[in-house]
Amino acid sequence: MSDAQAAKMKVAILGFGTVGSSVARILFDSQPAGVELTHIFNRNVARKRVDWVPSSVQWTENVEDVLSSHADIVLELAGGLDPAGEWVRRALEAGKSVVTANKKLIAEHGIALDKLARSKACHLFYGAAVAGGVPVIPGLQQGLAGDRITRIEGILNGTCNFILSKMEDGAEFAPVLKEAQALGYAEADPTEDVAGFDARAKLVILSRIALRADVTVGDVPAKSITEIAAIDFAYAREMGCTIRQISRAELRNDEVLATVGPMLVPQASPLAWSHGTENMVLVGGAYGGDVVFSGHGAGGNPTAVAVISDLLAIAHGSCAVGLPSRKIGVSGDFLLRHYIRFVVKDRPGIIAQIAGALAEQEINIHAILQKPGHTKENLPFVVIVEPCPPGPLKKALEKIAKLDCLLEPTLDLQILEPENGA
Amino acid sequence: MSDAQAAKMKVAILGFGTVGSSVARILFDSQPAGVELTHIFNRNVARKRVDWVPSSVQWTENVEDVLSSHADIVLELAGGLDPAGEWVRRALEAGKSVVTANKKLIAEHGIALDKLARSKACHLFYGAAVAGGVPVIPGLQQGLAGDRITRIEGILNGTCNFILSKMEDGAEFAPVLKEAQALGYAEADPTEDVAGFDARAKLVILSRIALRADVTVGDVPAKSITEIAAIDFAYAREMGCTIRQISRAELRNDEVLATVGPMLVPQASPLAWSHGTENMVLVGGAYGGDVVFSGHGAGGNPTAVAVISDLLAIAHGSCAVGLPSRKIGVSGDFLLRHYIRFVVKDRPGIIAQIAGALAEQEINIHAILQKPGHTKENLPFVVIVEPCPPGPLKKALEKIAKLDCLLEPTLDLQILEPENGA
Repeated sequence: MSDAQAAKMKVAILGFGTVGSSVARILFDSQPAGVELTHIFNRNVARKRVDWVPSSVQWTENVEDVLSSHADIVLELAGGLDPAGEWVRRALEAGKSVVTANKKLIAEHGIALDKLARSKACHLFYGAAVAGGVPVIPGLQQGLAGDRITRIEGILNGTCNFILSKMEDGAEFAPVLKEAQALGYAEADPTEDVAGFDARAKLVILSRIALRADVTVGDVPAKSITEIAAIDFAYAREMGCTIRQISRAELRNDEVLATVGPMLVPQASPLAWSHGTENMVLVGGAYGGDVVFSGHGAGGNPTAVAVISDLLAIAHGSCAVGLPSRKIGVSGDFLLRHYIRFVVKDRPGIIAQIAGALAEQEINIHAILQKPGHTKENLPFVVIVEPCPPGPLKKALEKIAKLDCLLEPTLDLQILEPENGA
Repeated sequence: MSDAQAAKMKVAILGFGTVGSSVARILFDSQPAGVELTHIFNRNVARKRVDWVPSSVQWTENVEDVLSSHADIVLELAGGLDPAGEWVRRALEAGKSVVTANKKLIAEHGIALDKLARSKACHLFYGAAVAGGVPVIPGLQQGLAGDRITRIEGILNGTCNFILSKMEDGAEFAPVLKEAQALGYAEADPTEDVAGFDARAKLVILSRIALRADVTVGDVPAKSITEIAAIDFAYAREMGCTIRQISRAELRNDEVLATVGPMLVPQASPLAWSHGTENMVLVGGAYGGDVVFSGHGAGGNPTAVAVISDLLAIAHGSCAVGLPSRKIGVSGDFLLRHYIRFVVKDRPGIIAQIAGALAEQEINIHAILQKPGHTKENLPFVVIVEPCPPGPLKKALEKIAKLDCLLEPTLDLQILEPENGA
């Protein structure tokens, strides 16, 4: 647009880490019309200085230098709720538009921040908050606003996908986690990723945009991937499945069914095809059917692409199509088949006791799988149960947990049905 | 946006066929804020009238009723260059924004129409022109503007994908085409689809948006899928491949390499996973890596979703991020391996003659495949050649065509390399 070219918008970067420096680098490489980097803020900024940034850019460790400046657009790339949330609020209050990659902040406070942005006639864009370089948020806001989306299934955490797709080839969890940490894919404390908290924040944002449902982050049940063992991939393969960390949300009457955690995924589902740090999002619409987005969700450059795309959208006078969302309750009670893996010291009568506990809760057994090659002293086997609500199953598993033959806590995974996932 | 809700934008539909009636139906079902259907135009409109459209909507067979009305946004869903192009031009000149699903019009005249729209401070959106319900255009414009896209590979024609994915299961072309026609997936005259002209128009639009390259539609080599036989799928399978109609464009120095036509696609490529009428687009970016979009590309409802999403974007004050494109030459000279299938009446010396003709052009043979089960009277076999430019290969095949043993014209398909397609 000629306006954008005539008067360049001044841009400040808050946080000069991996993403911040990628954003600056791409801006200098590609020199997009209409924008000009004027400020870079970071704590202890001296150690961050790089020689390829032109001298016209002001480096600062005082955020007030940015908030009180003439910067038109602030790129918040520091992450975390605090103090980043306060910076975003103050930037919006000062009439600056904000682009952020901060999924935690948008999941927790996105609705209030959107409202604040509108009241100040400025913009809040956060395309990088979900799936990084994969344009899921713009695709939903600009391209699928005309549909009524009823279902989201996603692989939203590259770290978990890296770990699980490596385990698919036979490795155990602990060494693969170490490898992920060595490669920089996993943090020293991997809890946010492996426990599903990172994916959950992203699922909450997608639910708001796609399902127009405001759900409270803490209400979505999240299950860790740490209990998955190589043997589970062997059993999954026998069932024509693999295992992935799946983030799901589905509108059903007046609630949203939503969970984050490891699931058995049929090989026929696109979700089974994502490998390494790839992200994938499948949305199901009442009119348009299923649409799949996939690509590199994380890393400095892919995330920077999303940030710069948002920046250019603002500079070119675009705005997000924000359709109204409504507060709604969450339940994790998907009615699905379950994969239940036991590790026992074998003796006669175990299957009878397990079957009895399940029958008491009116849960039907679909199949029992026992791969050869294990000793009776340490025997893993699997019971597949017919679709059942999690409540009664939990009761049955609590009863089973008291059996003296169990050597390990029982692993209970839901199975993504082909009709939902293919 | 409160403005949109306060003053509803008046919307006219030009063309009440499959897509037009889906658009009207979804508008009445979902009642999105900010827009109001006021006119429906069609030739011989009387036969189109339906009782579920409220009486406030004016039905007309005189396009002047729309062009001279107070309609703010015109949805052009008639298709074709003429008279639809004239209607779009006149609507824009009258200051009305336009949403169109017309790939032919946008491929041929999109740049001039974009310019006209900007000069009138109104909008021209055409998200439905490529891949229907899959938000490729919004994803590229809003979500990937920050990247430098260098490569597009797509399955852009659902009819061809339906035919080829059915042939993958063993059927021959002619009966599958008949089935596609019976199902309404293919026209009585299927040329536009099977010859690649439909996909080529879409590839030209994607090249403009993603590669920022203006190419002339007729300059892109298009090859028909009609020569593909069931035997080619058998040979492709032996090579770990399948066959799909692939639309490709790649920026290389100061030209765009681009072709549309059937190719061998490795099973490991996402492009091999699309079945039925599905569409899929893979874009490769310098910073963000590969991003894949897929879903239902055609049909009334998916296309209507794209049209209504564009309509809502305009009603909510959004605009497309139109980055400048430049005129650039096209070449079809991808340097790739080729699959060459001969059908011969066997006699000694055929391989030697073929190998000699290839060697004269300095083309190396990578493999020769001959499946058992065919008679010497009608023997299909395949020669795979190392990557070579199409020019010398064409010369070699012209020489080979003169051999008296050939029973059918030789089929020459490029092979999508795993490093490009996976």
